[in-house]
Formats: sequence, structure tokens, C-alpha cells
Amino acid sequence: MAQYMSMDTLRFLIHEVLDVQQLLKYDRFKDYDKASFDLLLDSTKSFADQFMYPVFKEMDKSPAYFKDGKIHVHEAVEKMMEYAGQNGTIGSTFDYEHGGMQLPHVIESALAHIGQCANNSLTGYPGLTSGAAQLIVNFGTQDLIDTYVPKMIEGKWGGTMCLTEPQAGSSLSDITTSAESQADGSYSIKGQKIFISGGDHEYCENFVHLVLARIEGAPKGTKGISLFVVPKYILSDEGNLLPNDVITTADFQKMGQRGYCTTHLVFGEKSLCKGWLIGPENKGLKCMFLMMNGARIDVGLTAASTATAAYYASLQYAKERPQGRRVLSGGKKNTDEEQTTIIDHPDVRRMLLLQKSISEGALSLLLNASYYHDLSKVSESDEERKKYHLLLELITPIAKTYPSEMGQISISNGMQILGGYGYCTDFPLEQYYRDIRIMAIYEGTTGIQSLDLLGRKIVMQNGEALKLLTKEIIYTIKEAVAFDLLKPYADQLKTASKKLETVLMHLLQFAMNGDHERFIADATPFMELMSNIVIGWQWLKIGLRAHIAQINGKEVYGNAFYENKIHTMKFYYKYELTKIEGLALTLMHPDALTIKEKNKATLTE
Amino acid sequence: MAQYMSMDTLRFLIHEVLDVQQLLKYDRFKDYDKASFDLLLDSTKSFADQFMYPVFKEMDKSPAYFKDGKIHVHEAVEKMMEYAGQNGTIGSTFDYEHGGMQLPHVIESALAHIGQCANNSLTGYPGLTSGAAQLIVNFGTQDLIDTYVPKMIEGKWGGTMCLTEPQAGSSLSDITTSAESQADGSYSIKGQKIFISGGDHEYCENFVHLVLARIEGAPKGTKGISLFVVPKYILSDEGNLLPNDVITTADFQKMGQRGYCTTHLVFGEKSLCKGWLIGPENKGLKCMFLMMNGARIDVGLTAASTATAAYYASLQYAKERPQGRRVLSGGKKNTDEEQTTIIDHPDVRRMLLLQKSISEGALSLLLNASYYHDLSKVSESDEERKKYHLLLELITPIAKTYPSEMGQISISNGMQILGGYGYCTDFPLEQYYRDIRIMAIYEGTTGIQSLDLLGRKIVMQNGEALKLLTKEIIYTIKEAVAFDLLKPYADQLKTASKKLETVLMHLLQFAMNGDHERFIADATPFMELMSNIVIGWQWLKIGLRAHIAQINGKEVYGNAFYENKIHTMKFYYKYELTKIEGLALTLMHPDALTIKEKNKATLTE
Repeated sequence: MAQYMSMDTLRFLIHEVLDVQQLLKYDRFKDYDKASFDLLLDSTKSFADQFMYPVFKEMDKSPAYFKDGKIHVHEAVEKMMEYAGQNGTIGSTFDYEHGGMQLPHVIESALAHIGQCANNSLTGYPGLTSGAAQLIVNFGTQDLIDTYVPKMIEGKWGGTMCLTEPQAGSSLSDITTSAESQADGSYSIKGQKIFISGGDHEYCENFVHLVLARIEGAPKGTKGISLFVVPKYILSDEGNLLPNDVITTADFQKMGQRGYCTTHLVFGEKSLCKGWLIGPENKGLKCMFLMMNGARIDVGLTAASTATAAYYASLQYAKERPQGRRVLSGGKKNTDEEQTTIIDHPDVRRMLLLQKSISEGALSLLLNASYYHDLSKVSESDEERKKYHLLLELITPIAKTYPSEMGQISISNGMQILGGYGYCTDFPLEQYYRDIRIMAIYEGTTGIQSLDLLGRKIVMQNGEALKLLTKEIIYTIKEAVAFDLLKPYADQLKTASKKLETVLMHLLQFAMNGDHERFIADATPFMELMSNIVIGWQWLKIGLRAHIAQINGKEVYGNAFYENKIHTMKFYYKYELTKIEGLALTLMHPDALTIKEKNKATLTE
Repeated sequence: MAQYMSMDTLRFLIHEVLDVQQLLKYDRFKDYDKASFDLLLDSTKSFADQFMYPVFKEMDKSPAYFKDGKIHVHEAVEKMMEYAGQNGTIGSTFDYEHGGMQLPHVIESALAHIGQCANNSLTGYPGLTSGAAQLIVNFGTQDLIDTYVPKMIEGKWGGTMCLTEPQAGSSLSDITTSAESQADGSYSIKGQKIFISGGDHEYCENFVHLVLARIEGAPKGTKGISLFVVPKYILSDEGNLLPNDVITTADFQKMGQRGYCTTHLVFGEKSLCKGWLIGPENKGLKCMFLMMNGARIDVGLTAASTATAAYYASLQYAKERPQGRRVLSGGKKNTDEEQTTIIDHPDVRRMLLLQKSISEGALSLLLNASYYHDLSKVSESDEERKKYHLLLELITPIAKTYPSEMGQISISNGMQILGGYGYCTDFPLEQYYRDIRIMAIYEGTTGIQSLDLLGRKIVMQNGEALKLLTKEIIYTIKEAVAFDLLKPYADQLKTASKKLETVLMHLLQFAMNGDHERFIADATPFMELMSNIVIGWQWLKIGLRAHIAQINGKEVYGNAFYENKIHTMKFYYKYELTKIEGLALTLMHPDALTIKEKNKATLTE
């Protein structure tokens, strides 16, 4: 079987770069040890090898589709939900009392990574079910928890999140789905939701939709949105499933992730569609964000994983494909020589290292985010928990966006290595290229994430989160600067970090002067700048751990492994971190060219 | 009908930025005037509207395929070839004596742009036929010209270029297709060629393949390659078409450009496959490059055109789609307001301007290249002709690569404007996104183009071509610097141009010290740096002409048009030209991280 990810890299990141064993001291994780984590990783890899990877291409060639009122998906979805239910995947991080495994989020992410590398379409089904169940656990009544959560954790019932409406898109303040209070305490839900991933298919007995809607008379805008559990079938007191008026009216045929169905749902159009409020009235958006934040991390991780799988596909090709010869002094080539394998050409090495630096840097950030998630729950003091919560909040939009955006570039370089074959459907690169493109759109586009980063996360609590992140980065720099090999990179990161501060001070002036539109106008290039530095920090951490392993002679994964990590760090600092120079110039530029009122140009043509 | 290109921009570029009327003073073009050029543009637009654009999506949904030994393409191909034959498109730039129209290349490119914007799959069929016929005209005997060229110009017979072989890919020195001399002066051809665009279908009576092969006993490497005309059917003295042993054995199913067939051809496997040498023995590659250079320009133009069409699709959506509200002072939004159309959001404006700056900058460069092509043929003195030939040689790899690479980014931003809809097959963006991706691979990948630029074109004739280009750029800077509005941009371009020089001096040291592999190791980032500056030069030219039109009160296309051009120039200088800072750092970095021998890292994992 083709290699689609690296277990060594994954283990190195969780055990050496993050040191997840630090989590074992907390009571919540007392039943685990390193060996049990490794066992879980191995059994997930084995399932991914035997079952998920083999149907990856097939699910693309026979995409999910809508016919005669039904969504048809690949039969692998049945086995996937069954496996996820039987192995506890869906509720893996949940409390024991809710049928969960109390697994650390960082381990859950590591397991998810394996599956996503093998088959990025299949993992969405249990993934969203888990997020939806989590919402019910957090905000639902005991009755709702008892009714829905066990079936969802078992993988018998699917879960979804229903936010987007045709007329509103990213503008949630404009959603119009309505909820009218009923005598029995439930609500009558009416409205339409689009782009609902995993929204319906034949392999779950029931679907549990988490739906944003407005209770009659609620305030306008996002302050009047509430959250409801709306099942496709209602469980009667006798244990029968009775139809609720949730109708799938269409699907969306996508460029990629074709094995993952996307549906159009209509609620309460013909008869009564019952929903149950969870969380406080009009606070639905805040509740939904618990799931949304998890989903954003999951999208970022899926992007990092898709880029990882593409990297290994192009690496294998580069190692096997003979073509051309090395360039000799004077620019000549010796045509008497055998052709060299293309991995020896500098431009191919550049493309491989670019992929490696993006995909592993991204994976490292995602695992770091999940680790913060754990620490925000289990740390002993309020202050510590708050600290890690803020760090997680700040890096979530970056962890979602960097892999989604740069993962596209990464895979494009992988395709380029295969040349014409990369563009052909007989080879896997073109599917990865199509699949990853949705990640910059799912769960809030790059534009939305960038507004969230600059307009909300950076400024929240007087910049507290950024101060904490800067401290973390400086901590790594201080550790690294002690090693001759790493000092130049630590210094470069320090300079970069100061440049970020300068740029931010420049932008904040606009906010302070009341010109908020100008403040956030270039949020996307700002996201690019900041992501670049945050990934640079991840690579310095990776380089540091690799170098320490070399020095200590504890090269668990072999010398070449650690050497390659340090080399890829160097590559990132030469080819990628340098981009911040241009971005800073753009962000500090005096002209406001994208604000309508400030320019004569109409842009209508 | 949806807008897919701008006739105003096209006319502005050829009449005002390039001033093609300067060509009318040459005898070769004496039968033309501005009105006749405009008439051709209009009639091509009308055909594109009525026939090419309407089948664009359809050709993607029902791709070309191979079945029972035959390639099946959309029936539109028949009408396309018929139209191209009847209207002189295929031979438009050919001499009158060869049945051509003696049209300037720049006008041919303008016409091709219109068609490519409407339907990038259809234009390849007549395009390659034209290139193949041109080769026969240039290097074939009168007999071969008489036999093949008229039928090709009429669109009855298709033409192809056959270079790539399964074992050789980009390494042409390793091709093994053989040619054995026959008693009748022809050659017996044996071998296989892959990735042959437009290589076979039911709507041409015959196919004329231009095939690279080795004559028995020829020297190894590229010095032993000859060029042959190999028809699918041989025209007998009685005027009958007799089968030659050219067999289509398979097709390649591609991610995009699915209406444009890609074939696998086998020559002489079962019986005699006759071919006729054109050009001198063992000089085939040099001859082929006449067609190849044209094909590279054509690929670059198709990329620029595909990005243009995508730009207009996303512009239309942005103008029509209501969503969200403008940000007010303090970061609030007024939810009592109606939703605004998304074109008013700064991030959407940024994405539109990015697309416009890439696609129009690229189009301008391509038309400039074709204009140089004309001047290299018709200029009066040898020196002038040589000058324009060198300029064309130098900018060809850039004109092929910039639109192909940055066009992907451009279209990706267009898709982002449509959000989830952009990823769905009901909307056109995802097709443009898939279609354009092949352009960085066709006719020499970006890696190959970059080696050509830095390793060959920059250094040829002691850097003469670069000196000439620098002169052209300085000429524009000098013109622009006289205007207050343009001076900052002229200055920025001057600084950028000096930075290019510094980087080049740095790299050339490696070549001078005999380390040629190091010299060209970062050819691709060098391509990116230089392209960025060359497109900056195009935008300064555009800004200059627009500003002069404003000053003179000769705003032929309306005030908003010129204002938008100047605005887009400003955008390019703020958001794109600034990238050279990071690229220069990368290129001047002391570490050689992509050369195998110079690093301990193995990159095997």
C-alpha cells in the first residue's frame, strides 16, 4: 500500500514536541499511559489501511447524490459509522458519564489525522456527529441528552450543524428560520438550511440537526438567534421513530470531497417540524460556537491531513521516477549516464520540502491547538485554564486557515512533481487538489476567519491572548537561542515577531481613531503574515526537539528522521518566513485601496 | 449572456497601450487598418457569444473519451474547425502565398483571447493545427507544403505536436522513437508518444503529427533528434486517403480542460508508418521550438484568458449578491439596514482587484510578446529585428508561466468570492479552477520554464536580452516619472528593477565559479521575482496610457474605465510588487538547501 502519512512524525509531534505525557498527571486521564495512546494510534492506522484508504478514490468516482428524495452515499459510510461507534471514536473526548472515553483532545486529533490522510471524505460523518452530540451534552437537558447522545455516540444516529441559509450565507444575523413555542415545551421550526454536510443518507437510522433559528419576537441580528435540536425522526415514548417534517430537497454537487454528501434541508414546510431549545433563548450563536470552534479545528486538521497524503504520494513518485540528469559544472549534462530519479533535481527537492514544511508545520499547529484545548479543561488553576482557553481562541482561526490556504499551494506543488500525470485522474494528486479546496470555505471562509483573528481575537481583553502567545513564542526562542545550530533561526523568528507587533500597532491606530473598516480591510494579508510567524514558531519547536534528540543521542526514529526535520525547519525559514517582508509593506502601505468611499474607482468593470 | 471578457480592455491594450497602428506602416500589413482590426474582433466576439461560450460547461460535463479504438469529442469541435477554416483563423498570420491572411500576431492573439475566454477547450484544436502548419511552411519541402498546409488551414485536417514519451517526460534527450530511412525518401517511424493534445477525433478527415524521432545512428541526446511529418492517412497520387500505421491506443482523463482530448499515439507498431523529414537531420528540436515557442505563448494566453473569464464571473456575482453590512465606526454593523451587495466589502474588493491585476497584467504581457513577435519579423533593420527577437525569447518563459501560476491564485480568489457556491458544479468558477491548472504543465512545466529563463535566456549573448528588456522598462519609467500621479510607482519599479539586478549578480557568481547546479537551483523563485517586476512594468504602461487619456480628455471608454485601470495599477504595486522583498531574501540566502550533495538531510521521508 502507498504511504499516505507518517506514524513516526505523528508520534514525534505528540510525544517529543508536545510531550503529551504531561497530561497524564491529571485525574481525567488517569486511565491512560503512553502505551495505551500508541495502541490507539496503531489500531486506527490499521483500520485506515485496511478499510478507509482503499475506498478513497472510489468514493470520488461514485460521488454522493440525491435521487427520488433520498441522498445516496457510498456503502463505506455504513462501516465507518459502525466502526466509529464501536470503537468509541465519536465520543472519545466525552466524560465517562456520557459514554465517552475521556481521551485527550490532542490524541483524538492524532487519531483523526490518520483517518483524514487515508480518506478525507469518510471522516466528516462521525466528526460532525461528535460535535453535535457535544453540544447536546453541554447545553441540553438531561432528557435530551438521554434521548440523543447514546445513539449518536454509537454511530446509529448522525449529527449535523445547520447554520447557512440561502439568503444569508456568512451573514448569520440575517437568518430567518423561525421557532414558535408549542404547548408541550417544544418549538415548531420553519425554514431552509443549505450546505449541510452529512445531512442525510441511508446508513443512519436518524439524523439529529443542531439548528439556528429565531424564536418569534426575538431581537434582530445575532442577538436573537437560538439553538435547537431538530431530529429527522422523533423517538416516541414506545421507542418508535416517528417522522418529523425535515425534508431533504436537494444536494450540492461539489468539485471535491465528493464522497461527503452536502444537502439542502427544509424544516416544517408541509407539517409540524418539532425542535427543542438547547442553551438559553437568544444565546444560540454562542452555544453553536462550541461546536463551530471544534469544527474549525477539524477543518484545519483535514486540510493538513490532505496535504500530508498528497506529500507522500508525490514523494513516492519522486523517488521512483527516472528522468533527466543532474546539472554539471558549466551547465552541461552527461547523456551517457542513466537518467536520475527526479528527487535529485533541486527544483523537485524544493517542491518536496515546501510540501513537507507546510503540511508538517500545519499538523504541528493543529496538535498544539488541541493540546491547549486539553489544558484549558484540566489545568488546576482558573488562571491557567483561562490562559489556555485564550491561546486556543486566538490560534483557532489560524489553525483553520493556514492549512486550508497553504495546503492548496502544497498540493499544487505535489501535482507539479508528477507533471502531466499529476493532472490525470489515474493518479491521486488531482483528487487531493480538488478535495482540499473546500477547506478555505467550510465553517467560515478565509475572509471570515481573518476578520475573527484581527477584529475579535487580537483585540479581545485588551490583547491578552496575543500577549500570551508572544510569551509562548519567546519561551521557544529563549530555549533555541542556546544552541549554535538554532540561534540564527531563533533570531529570525524574534525579528519577525517584532515586525508583527509593528504592523499591528500601525493597524490599531485606525481602530483607535474610529476607522474600524480601515482597521480590518486588510485582515486577510494580516492573517497571512501572522500565520507565517506562528508556523515559524512551530518549526523552531520541531527543530529544537530534533536537535536535542541528536545531542542526547536519543534518536528514537533514526538519525535521518531528525536530520530531515532540522533541514525542513531551515527550508521554512529561507523560503517561507521571508514572505513577511512583503506582507508588512502591504499592511503598512498608506493607501486604502479596497474601501469604497476612499477611492474614485468604481470597480464595476 | 454572462460577461466573460472585456472588449474595451482588449481594444485599450492593443490600440492605446501597444499602439498596434504603428504596424500598419509596414508593407506586410498594408491591407489592414484600425477599422478592419475592430471588425475582426467584433465578428470573433459574435461567434464566441453565439457558439463557443454556450457549450463551455457542456463540454466539461461530457468530456472527450476513448472507446473502441476511437476518440470521441463534443460535436462542437466540428463547427469550431469549420469556422476556423472558413474564417482564416488557422492561417491568419501566414503569408498570402501560403493561403494566410498576413495578420499581425498581436491581432491573432487578441482574437484568440476572445475565444479562449469563451471556451478554453475549443480553441486548442485550431490552435495546434495552426502551429503544426506553420512548421511545415517554415521547414517543409514545397511538396509537403502543398500536400498538407491547405487542408490544415481549411480546418479539414488537424495538426499536433508529438514530443513526450512515457519514459522521457520533460527530458527530450531520452526520447527513443526511431526513424529509418526508406528507399522512397520517406522514413519508417516507430515509437510511442503520450499527452498528445487534439491527437485524434472524428471531426477531422486526417491528422498531421509533427513528431520528434531519432534517425538510426544519430548522436545521443538532443543533438540526435529530427522532426517528421507523420500523417494518420497518406494522400495517394489519386487523391485518396490511405491509412498510415498511426494508432490511438488510449486517452488521458484529466481534471480539467475535459473537452480537449489528450491522446496516446503508437506509430509503426503493426505495419509501416511513414514520415517525412522536415528541416535538417538532427536539428529537429530547434525546428520544433518554432512551434513550441508559439505554443508556450498560446498556453500563457489561454491561462490569462481563463483567469479573465473567471474574474468576470465573480465580479458579476459580487455585484448581485446581497450579504452582510458595511462595518461602522467602532466595529458595529447596523442590522436595520438592508444587506449590502458583497462588492462593497473590502475583502471582496481586494479579491476582485487581485484578479483584475493578475489577469489584465498577464493579458497585457501576452499581447506585448506577440507585438514583439511582429516587430521581430517586419522591422526594417537587422538590428531591430534581432532586438525584438531577443526580447520575445526572454519574455516567452515569463509570458507562459506568470499567467499559468498566478492565474490559479486569481481564480481561487474568484471562487472564494462565491463562497460555497464557488465550489459547486452549478457555478462556473470550479471549472475555471480545474481548467487553468494544466497551463503550468503544458509545453514545459514551470520548473522547465524557469530553467529556460535563468539558465538560458538571461545568460544568452552575454545578457543582451536582459539589457534590452531593462532599457524598455527604463523607457516606461522615464515616461511615467514626469507625472505626479505616477512618480511613486515609477520609483518603486526602478527600485525593484535594481533589486533584480542585485539578485542576478549574486546568482551569476555561482555560474562563474562553475557551480551551475547552484546557479539554477532556485530558478523557480527567480522566475517569480522577475515575473512580478515584468508585470509591474505592464501595469505602469497601462497606468501611464490611462492617465494620459485622462489628461488629454480622450477617455474613449469612459472615465470610470480609466480610473479603474489606474486604481488596479496602484493595487498591484501595493499588494503584489511588494512580494519581491521576500523573494530577494530567499534568492540571496547563503544556504543551498535543495542540492543533494550539500546537505546531510536525505529527504527520503
